Amino acid sequence: MLKVGLLGAGRIGQVHAVNIAGNSRSSLVAVADAHAPAAATLAAQYGCEARSSAEIVSDPNIDAVLIATSTDTHVDFIEAAAKAGKAVLCEKPVDLSLERAQQCLIATKDMGSPIMIGFNRRFDPSFAALRAQSARGEIGKSELLSLTSFDPAPPPVSYIKVSGGLFRDMMIHDFDMANFLMDDRPVSIRAVGTSQVSEEIGLAGDVDTAVVTMTYADGRIAVIKNSRRAVYGYDQRIELLGSYGLLQAHNILENSVVKSTVEGVVSGKPVHFFLERYMPAYAAEWEAFVTAVIDKTPMPITLEDGVAALAMAEAATLSAQTGQLVDV
Amino acid sequence: MLKVGLLGAGRIGQVHAVNIAGNSRSSLVAVADAHAPAAATLAAQYGCEARSSAEIVSDPNIDAVLIATSTDTHVDFIEAAAKAGKAVLCEKPVDLSLERAQQCLIATKDMGSPIMIGFNRRFDPSFAALRAQSARGEIGKSELLSLTSFDPAPPPVSYIKVSGGLFRDMMIHDFDMANFLMDDRPVSIRAVGTSQVSEEIGLAGDVDTAVVTMTYADGRIAVIKNSRRAVYGYDQRIELLGSYGLLQAHNILENSVVKSTVEGVVSGKPVHFFLERYMPAYAAEWEAFVTAVIDKTPMPITLEDGVAALAMAEAATLSAQTGQLVDV
Amino acid sequence: MLKVGLLGAGRIGQVHAVNIAGNSRSSLVAVADAHAPAAATLAAQYGCEARSSAEIVSDPNIDAVLIATSTDTHVDFIEAAAKAGKAVLCEKPVDLSLERAQQCLIATKDMGSPIMIGFNRRFDPSFAALRAQSARGEIGKSELLSLTSFDPAPPPVSYIKVSGGLFRDMMIHDFDMANFLMDDRPVSIRAVGTSQVSEEIGLAGDVDTAVVTMTYADGRIAVIKNSRRAVYGYDQRIELLGSYGLLQAHNILENSVVKSTVEGVVSGKPVHFFLERYMPAYAAEWEAFVTAVIDKTPMPITLEDGVAALAMAEAATLSAQTGQLVDV
Amino acid sequence: MLKVGLLGAGRIGQVHAVNIAGNSRSSLVAVADAHAPAAATLAAQYGCEARSSAEIVSDPNIDAVLIATSTDTHVDFIEAAAKAGKAVLCEKPVDLSLERAQQCLIATKDMGSPIMIGFNRRFDPSFAALRAQSARGEIGKSELLSLTSFDPAPPPVSYIKVSGGLFRDMMIHDFDMANFLMDDRPVSIRAVGTSQVSEEIGLAGDVDTAVVTMTYADGRIAVIKNSRRAVYGYDQRIELLGSYGLLQAHNILENSVVKSTVEGVVSGKPVHFFLERYMPAYAAEWEAFVTAVIDKTPMPITLEDGVAALAMAEAATLSAQTGQLVDV
Repeated sequence: MLKVGLLGAGRIGQVHAVNIAGNSRSSLVAVADAHAPAAATLAAQYGCEARSSAEIVSDPNIDAVLIATSTDTHVDFIEAAAKAGKAVLCEKPVDLSLERAQQCLIATKDMGSPIMIGFNRRFDPSFAALRAQSARGEIGKSELLSLTSFDPAPPPVSYIKVSGGLFRDMMIHDFDMANFLMDDRPVSIRAVGTSQVSEEIGLAGDVDTAVVTMTYADGRIAVIKNSRRAVYGYDQRIELLGSYGLLQAHNILENSVVKSTVEGVVSGKPVHFFLERYMPAYAAEWEAFVTAVIDKTPMPITLEDGVAALAMAEAATLSAQTGQLVDV
Repeated sequence: MLKVGLLGAGRIGQVHAVNIAGNSRSSLVAVADAHAPAAATLAAQYGCEARSSAEIVSDPNIDAVLIATSTDTHVDFIEAAAKAGKAVLCEKPVDLSLERAQQCLIATKDMGSPIMIGFNRRFDPSFAALRAQSARGEIGKSELLSLTSFDPAPPPVSYIKVSGGLFRDMMIHDFDMANFLMDDRPVSIRAVGTSQVSEEIGLAGDVDTAVVTMTYADGRIAVIKNSRRAVYGYDQRIELLGSYGLLQAHNILENSVVKSTVEGVVSGKPVHFFLERYMPAYAAEWEAFVTAVIDKTPMPITLEDGVAALAMAEAATLSAQTGQLVDV
Repeated sequence: MLKVGLLGAGRIGQVHAVNIAGNSRSSLVAVADAHAPAAATLAAQYGCEARSSAEIVSDPNIDAVLIATSTDTHVDFIEAAAKAGKAVLCEKPVDLSLERAQQCLIATKDMGSPIMIGFNRRFDPSFAALRAQSARGEIGKSELLSLTSFDPAPPPVSYIKVSGGLFRDMMIHDFDMANFLMDDRPVSIRAVGTSQVSEEIGLAGDVDTAVVTMTYADGRIAVIKNSRRAVYGYDQRIELLGSYGLLQAHNILENSVVKSTVEGVVSGKPVHFFLERYMPAYAAEWEAFVTAVIDKTPMPITLEDGVAALAMAEAATLSAQTGQLVDV
Repeated sequence: MLKVGLLGAGRIGQVHAVNIAGNSRSSLVAVADAHAPAAATLAAQYGCEARSSAEIVSDPNIDAVLIATSTDTHVDFIEAAAKAGKAVLCEKPVDLSLERAQQCLIATKDMGSPIMIGFNRRFDPSFAALRAQSARGEIGKSELLSLTSFDPAPPPVSYIKVSGGLFRDMMIHDFDMANFLMDDRPVSIRAVGTSQVSEEIGLAGDVDTAVVTMTYADGRIAVIKNSRRAVYGYDQRIELLGSYGLLQAHNILENSVVKSTVEGVVSGKPVHFFLERYMPAYAAEWEAFVTAVIDKTPMPITLEDGVAALAMAEAATLSAQTGQLVDV
């Protein structure tokens, strides 16, 4: 039984708590949060202790630490927990600074602690099925990948300002998905981004609508489309064209009801946002982490994967600013 | 080149005219209609002659007659045209009286003229594809057939009164489809019908919503659902469950556009009514008729098929009135 | 916090255990099973006690009893638990004997204990959404209901023999759904059933393919289709035609991936069976039970509802045997 | 009645012949083709004359000329026919040389003859419906357009060599669609193209897989994806994200049959290629041309539109070669 300490009792931390407690091979033993009452409430619900982050990281009885705190604390917690010999699952992104993330990679390299970065989408049942079908050669050689990721609504501009920008904050998921689905990293990145959704976002120096095109050494192409606003819900789709066919992962709908009236045929909308959509993915992610720790197998997503996605975000940010293609 | 005389220049007659003229192996040479100006207009459009029905039927230069007149004239025209040695395509139903239809069958039996009854739905590309897949054994042995046929809106009650009732006028198409898809005729029929759509229809002694269940000698079951009103359009669907799977023919939509907004995900409606939905079926039906006449092969739908569907309508009418199952 | 004793540690009992433990307002305190080791294993997993059924039913510290034992024990446990003042959630059906179920209804009438019968499908998110839309009048007045329920594969014939037959064992869910969706009970039932899936089932005196047509006092009609075998998965669909439109609840698919190749466009299959399909329904059912018990509001599904569904199953069995319509 | 001469009796010319003859306001009076027997056969089928192109262009009895000849002859025929005072419908592209197309625009500017370029996709019922919905503001302000156009299989490399390349030959349709749907022309174009489908295409100096990203003065973005090979059929889709929602035009399927077996749920494929897919579009295009000529209203697609699309193809070709964004 893996004894787990949870750092961060916010929205994402709460999702992880369900999965840690619900998994037959792990138990939640302690919760910490910068805002102490949040930790206390969550600890009470799961019958475990609320402690400080430092206590959790240094407790020899804790086997694994799940880091779901604010982004700027990720690297410090990863390094401290790894140093203390704990298995680590850290929410994405590693950091907003590529340099700092790379230093973390170097710093933890020889510590021997298994570290996984939580790109939850890799564990979405539909996305995972799509990749498995591609890996089995069901569409031959892959040629053209398209990722569509639209959020239902933009976050507050106060968040935008500290987010690192759309490419680092939002599209980073898609960069990792491209790496996951193409089984390779791109050689060049072209990005274009504009601010159409909210003037405030533009004034804050960020974009809210963006398209990135990437090429691979073998000629393959990937396209990523992001928008901060899709009023109909969380739009998360994948298309992969190959020599023998096309794979698509469509949205998951809130229910399966269809209403036909004189006004048209109305189906359910996509589930509203990431917590609903990726609930099964978070559970599968945790299961994969537990399995890798217990079986001592390689982490399915490494810290290096996290750094690679960040490097692509950096390149895209630069390309969008200069209009030039950026080699990576 | 098959020289064709068209009896009836109404809505259905006009559809047939397009197909007769558009088929490279047939030409429209004459049109008749009880309402002379209608025949004149249609004849002018196609550069052919408007004549009386009698003239068309007796013209030795005419090879085939298409009967698209009112139902009560069908039998007389079938018999006259067959006697004159013409190939005949007659719109369904043969007649509202089963007895009269049976007499027509006997009367024309030895005349040698090929006679086809126009159950257009057999030629719908989707329904025909479904049957072909079933015939190829793609779902193993068929077990349970479901036919859904809803009209967009009820006809005027004046029409209802002379229509022979829902089972003879509307469900007759489904009886023929069941015969077509099950490749056999049922041994028993149970019908239930009520008047819910329009009080007037009930007062006229007819039903507007009905369900028929039929069993076959080998244990198979078929269900037919009819309603005179589906406000969202012409609802025409088939489901066939077999030992290896399920075949479904869904509706054809007016277009392929899908709109997602905060109010839901809206698709196009089913095409509105039978002329739009079955336009390709009417063309394929005519092509099949022409082929059978020219190649001297058996008619794909015989007069006997028309009589069989009528006998089933009769049985269903009786079952709905008595609440008893009727053996056929 | 509702303290709950679980009777039955089989497949269904295990599903209920997850929901009892996972609900923030209930806790699982004891488990019983005729097969003691099964109770012990489940109790160990949830850190509660394995006891005898009698101990659970008589324990004054237990507030509610969930009955997930074999059907023939349902009535005894309902009566004992109700007599002991416990809230009861009992799996369907109440009993295979209508008479015995009715006696149970009479016996428990004045005991004051809240009793709910577990027709889980009422809590399926899509079915519940369909009913809510109908109840809000979104398709006007309902007219024609169609329920399709196909199992992926027939149970062993040994089970069939003690099941009470398809109408009591399988279609009973659909009878309850019809009552739920039509907000009324039918006045007449016509049933037809045949044995096509498995000869053994026929030899055991049961049917495996059946269609029931029911009429209501106000002229509405409902059709239920059942098959013991749909090789592509658990096929669970609803259609409700109304004066302003049609509501459909489609199947839930195993994933959202679509593959297009030269061989066609392939989507995911329906989820395989009831545990996968109705997992969210079981959780919502338990939540509804807990709410009704704690808030002392009427049970969403009463023992009388359970008896009513059984009476309809009885009537359908009779109709299928005699070929006659049965008034209910 | 518009008297029409058809130049070109090939595959596309034959499609136009059907529509010219089938339209109640136009008649086909003469056909020409560089390969005389082709013209003779087509003329025989429609009961009109086979003549030389020069004879058709100079015949004062001919009102309109439809140019469906090889691309390199388009400009000469446009200029000759316009000079002769005829209304002109010319297949796309105007020419492979932007300069020559621009000269044609200048040359015909003051001739007063109405000239339309045949971008048939604008008349596809689904695409036209999507644009109408966007124009009515149903998704608010448009923000991000995506066009997917995949051919079922690449043309012979001999054709590729004279085609002008993917951007001028294939993506030109999408450039026009972008202009049509965005109601504006882009300010910058970024293109990437690789040869993955066929090595021969790469050796011929062309690409077979390409992505173009375009930005507009108001910040909007459009993405076009092209592949010469989608083995499952002709893949033609549009997505337009706006401030109030998303519009999608999906593929048109060969039929509406869905088969569910243990192997999955299989639907019909997209219709195979452009003749099947755009048959209704060609008829609507011709109807629009006839209406504009007879009503003396502006042509729905002008020669200038044809030149604009060609200029975009030129820019994309340059961008793909240099890796730089190109201002237009």
